[in-house]
Amino acid sequence: MSNVAIVGATGAVGQEFLKILAERHFPVEELRLLATKRSAGKKVLWQGQELEVQETTHESFKGIDIALFAGGSASTEFAPSAVKSGAVVIDNSSAFRLDPEVPLVVPEVNPEDVKNHKGIIANPNCSTIIMAVAIKPIFDLAGIRRIVVSTYQAVSGAGREGIEELEAEVKAWSKGDEMTPAVFPYQIAFNLIPRIDVFQEGDYTKEEWKMVKETQKIFHAPDMAITATTVRVPIFRSHSESINVETEKLVSIAEIRESLCKAKGVIVDDDPSSDRYPMPWFSADTDEVYVGRLRKDFSIAQGLNMWVVGDQIRKGAATNAVQIAELLL
Amino acid sequence: MSNVAIVGATGAVGQEFLKILAERHFPVEELRLLATKRSAGKKVLWQGQELEVQETTHESFKGIDIALFAGGSASTEFAPSAVKSGAVVIDNSSAFRLDPEVPLVVPEVNPEDVKNHKGIIANPNCSTIIMAVAIKPIFDLAGIRRIVVSTYQAVSGAGREGIEELEAEVKAWSKGDEMTPAVFPYQIAFNLIPRIDVFQEGDYTKEEWKMVKETQKIFHAPDMAITATTVRVPIFRSHSESINVETEKLVSIAEIRESLCKAKGVIVDDDPSSDRYPMPWFSADTDEVYVGRLRKDFSIAQGLNMWVVGDQIRKGAATNAVQIAELLL
Repeated sequence: MSNVAIVGATGAVGQEFLKILAERHFPVEELRLLATKRSAGKKVLWQGQELEVQETTHESFKGIDIALFAGGSASTEFAPSAVKSGAVVIDNSSAFRLDPEVPLVVPEVNPEDVKNHKGIIANPNCSTIIMAVAIKPIFDLAGIRRIVVSTYQAVSGAGREGIEELEAEVKAWSKGDEMTPAVFPYQIAFNLIPRIDVFQEGDYTKEEWKMVKETQKIFHAPDMAITATTVRVPIFRSHSESINVETEKLVSIAEIRESLCKAKGVIVDDDPSSDRYPMPWFSADTDEVYVGRLRKDFSIAQGLNMWVVGDQIRKGAATNAVQIAELLL
Repeated sequence: MSNVAIVGATGAVGQEFLKILAERHFPVEELRLLATKRSAGKKVLWQGQELEVQETTHESFKGIDIALFAGGSASTEFAPSAVKSGAVVIDNSSAFRLDPEVPLVVPEVNPEDVKNHKGIIANPNCSTIIMAVAIKPIFDLAGIRRIVVSTYQAVSGAGREGIEELEAEVKAWSKGDEMTPAVFPYQIAFNLIPRIDVFQEGDYTKEEWKMVKETQKIFHAPDMAITATTVRVPIFRSHSESINVETEKLVSIAEIRESLCKAKGVIVDDDPSSDRYPMPWFSADTDEVYVGRLRKDFSIAQGLNMWVVGDQIRKGAATNAVQIAELLL
């Protein structure tokens, strides 16, 4: 049995941690809920116990075995203290992901990397996790030369405030009221915002670079060529991705389909004859990555297109982190 | 002065034809509004005249110089009669687009093809037009070897009924009522549907094949490799496209930017430092194609990514058709 802390326990990912620990019967001895001062004192019911949210401090981690960090600036501030206290940190922020000392893990792809941790294990970016699960069987079967990916990312990627902003904007629109964006730079209701996170090198956004560099690290494939365009869409919580893959070896779509059908964590939902393909509304609240619209790319010799959907808060964040914790047991 | 007929005058594209003919001061002598029996008798105010919608019949085109067909099954049924009556048909349906006898025209790309018509000129698919305008300067500057495109298409692509369905679903959701899709195969509010039009060869949709084959025809470039994934998004009327281009020649992004800035029909809206990029909400009701997020694709030697937005009903349909009509004058 482990003593587990959740840092950021009142946010969208933090709340999902609570649900997933219970659902997966994670062997929790003590569950300590930590958040900012503003949320301290809130009561949360979990598995029949009433737990009080405490303010995160450098002393919060005494006796904790596993600290799940939901993301944000708390990671840089408190993860080192958690490690010093003897906890293993599983961190959902981007702070440590590209640190060569920190394993970056998707359990379906590189579970063995967990062993190399020095106190911190990073949970990848949500879009990266979802893509990694879907491309892993193809990587194993045929190798991957190049990926061109365009994303359709839900507002949940901006946390609970993102979800509330889309709700508020749509309700304002329904009443003919004005919409006043605060979380997103522009109105997101009935709109698309082709910029997620800050702009960086080469006019790519940080989100786009995460999909490139994190994927290369997870697969230990620094030469896997990847280019990404990441877009916020007015969807509540599942991310979708249009992924074009050029493989190293020539394989048939039938072989790829078979490898996807057998893969852990993947559900192939792909039947044109009965109009089946993955859609975000119908994949919310699930842990699998859905793959559909699988087809040969006729524009190159060894290419394929696919459409991939996964719940951003669950497999894209909380579930993946708890799966990492399970690997530690 | 020309006698102009609009077939499908009461639909979303038909209504836009009326607006655009007036806005562009098209030299109209008589304007004849045609539609299905259901809409016959409706009165429409245009340029101070009250016009009555008539049922389309094979005799509807006497004395008509230019017949603008908004799309749908009326084209196959009545376009031949219109041609027989001496009219030039500009057809927004997909019926004749790939017919080698029928020019398929985007005025910014291949205006000269208009001359070869034998009575019918086809207006391309909306997503195709928007992409064609954006890639034309790149095609001229550097040649295009391959395109990987993923679309984010508005509900207006399914006509007025599509717009009304999204409105109705969102209003139902706001009140906690159930949503009942009829136009689209599944709920579109807060959802993405990665299937537009019917499935065809290779498990591609007809919409995806249109983007491939129509683009190759417009550019007279049967070897330009194109692969497309087309997706319906809960946006009212502008289509967006994430376009990855591999060029034939090596050119810099600065050169491409310059060619786009000079191009007819293109507005470059691209400034990361002031958070500027094209968005569908802000491009509705305009005739230009907006290009942003222009950047080098580091995954190949001669690649670029860009984000392109255009009003599906205007440049993607009605404006392009009226521009073709202007070429005929």
